Amino acid sequence: MSVATLEQPAAEPVQKPDESERLVIFAWSGELDKIWPTLILATTGAAMGKETTVFFTFWGLFPLVKNEVRITGENWMQKMLSMMNRGGTGHLKLSKMNFAGAGKAMMMHLAKEHNVASPQELMALAQEMGVKLVPCQMTMDLLGLKREDLIEGLEAPAGATTALAEAQGAITLFI
Amino acid sequence: MSVATLEQPAAEPVQKPDESERLVIFAWSGELDKIWPTLILATTGAAMGKETTVFFTFWGLFPLVKNEVRITGENWMQKMLSMMNRGGTGHLKLSKMNFAGAGKAMMMHLAKEHNVASPQELMALAQEMGVKLVPCQMTMDLLGLKREDLIEGLEAPAGATTALAEAQGAITLFI
Amino acid sequence: MSVATLEQPAAEPVQKPDESERLVIFAWSGELDKIWPTLILATTGAAMGKETTVFFTFWGLFPLVKNEVRITGENWMQKMLSMMNRGGTGHLKLSKMNFAGAGKAMMMHLAKEHNVASPQELMALAQEMGVKLVPCQMTMDLLGLKREDLIEGLEAPAGATTALAEAQGAITLFI
Repeated sequence: MSVATLEQPAAEPVQKPDESERLVIFAWSGELDKIWPTLILATTGAAMGKETTVFFTFWGLFPLVKNEVRITGENWMQKMLSMMNRGGTGHLKLSKMNFAGAGKAMMMHLAKEHNVASPQELMALAQEMGVKLVPCQMTMDLLGLKREDLIEGLEAPAGATTALAEAQGAITLFI
Repeated sequence: MSVATLEQPAAEPVQKPDESERLVIFAWSGELDKIWPTLILATTGAAMGKETTVFFTFWGLFPLVKNEVRITGENWMQKMLSMMNRGGTGHLKLSKMNFAGAGKAMMMHLAKEHNVASPQELMALAQEMGVKLVPCQMTMDLLGLKREDLIEGLEAPAGATTALAEAQGAITLFI
Repeated sequence: MSVATLEQPAAEPVQKPDESERLVIFAWSGELDKIWPTLILATTGAAMGKETTVFFTFWGLFPLVKNEVRITGENWMQKMLSMMNRGGTGHLKLSKMNFAGAGKAMMMHLAKEHNVASPQELMALAQEMGVKLVPCQMTMDLLGLKREDLIEGLEAPAGATTALAEAQGAITLFI
């Protein structure tokens, strides 16, 4: 905002919503090494004053499931899926090196030593900072998840139309 | 630029191409769980009136290969590659859990029960809705693929320059 | 375009920084088949006159490590990490098919036969063409890397804030 702008408010063609600074992340992956950049970029964007939305879809939905909940599908397939992919940030895996969980333990330890926040801390921070965390309705339907199975503080579930409407004019990243 | 435009520039308030709502997806991955969001987002974008282009490159080219065709390279390496990566939407794999194909069967079954379209249906729908499906020329050259080896209804093969020219000002996703 | 603008066009001319054509790639993956599109898109963008930045983060940092250097951490975990992930473009792996290195050898051979540049050549070309190659400071800290451990010709290490500031209004891709 220039001084000129402040002096002549009436003449101002108001900034259109799509000209504001926005960041929209499509969080497709549920693995630790993808959740980390998702949440670091989202919290950084929010700290910079950008309107920031993370749209959690497909595998990306799993970190939003409450740690104490196993996905409760209505049929055996959803139950099998749920066994292979436990939700919640407490048991995310690294995509590249698991080595019976050693890679994850090392990375978490490294992060702790260097004061990098954990995914749980980043998720809480994102909520505090007003990042909009949106679960994908279609993925919830596919997995038989209800809203009460997900962590608190999320936006209403939405679909691809909502996500793409937010994305126009924003920084868009598919992670 | 039409002749009319060049003759009557003063009268022209026409919306510039880069101000229209557009979606450009770089479809790099050929796996089922990435093709799905690619085509769901593309068809949703088209339904919202966005000019939508999917640029299929690298592994992403394989789903465009006709189901009855095996990649026909001119040398033994292309043949080996083709054996490891069969083209066509009929035999896409899930990236995260294959379990001898069980994960894919479950996901397809889940999708069917919940009325989510298959990749084949989504590909056909995308074509009907005017989504531009562009195969990457360089990848075709690398794999020894000719245009007649690919499914019908695609745009002319193009390169990175074309893709980036379309991407400026659009929602851009690398999937 | 506001009415005021149309009435007083002479006073208005300067192109705002965020209206220039720019490309910002978040290079998160260190694998050969992701480094290739990253560098092909970056060099193509630069050739088209776009201001192009590649922000190398997480696994994406490894290709910037000098080929003769192994990551030199201060503790045993960083050393273990470094053994599992050797840096430098000389030993990148393919993400999808390794087969004891056979997939990579084939792909490199295929590329050579078809006059597609190697990652090393593309990295050098990107530097010559003025692509800004930015290493992620946080990842360097996590891995105990110093600037002298990285190849020459890089920009000063930076964080997510710098990357997102460049990304607003640009073509943005997370690869």
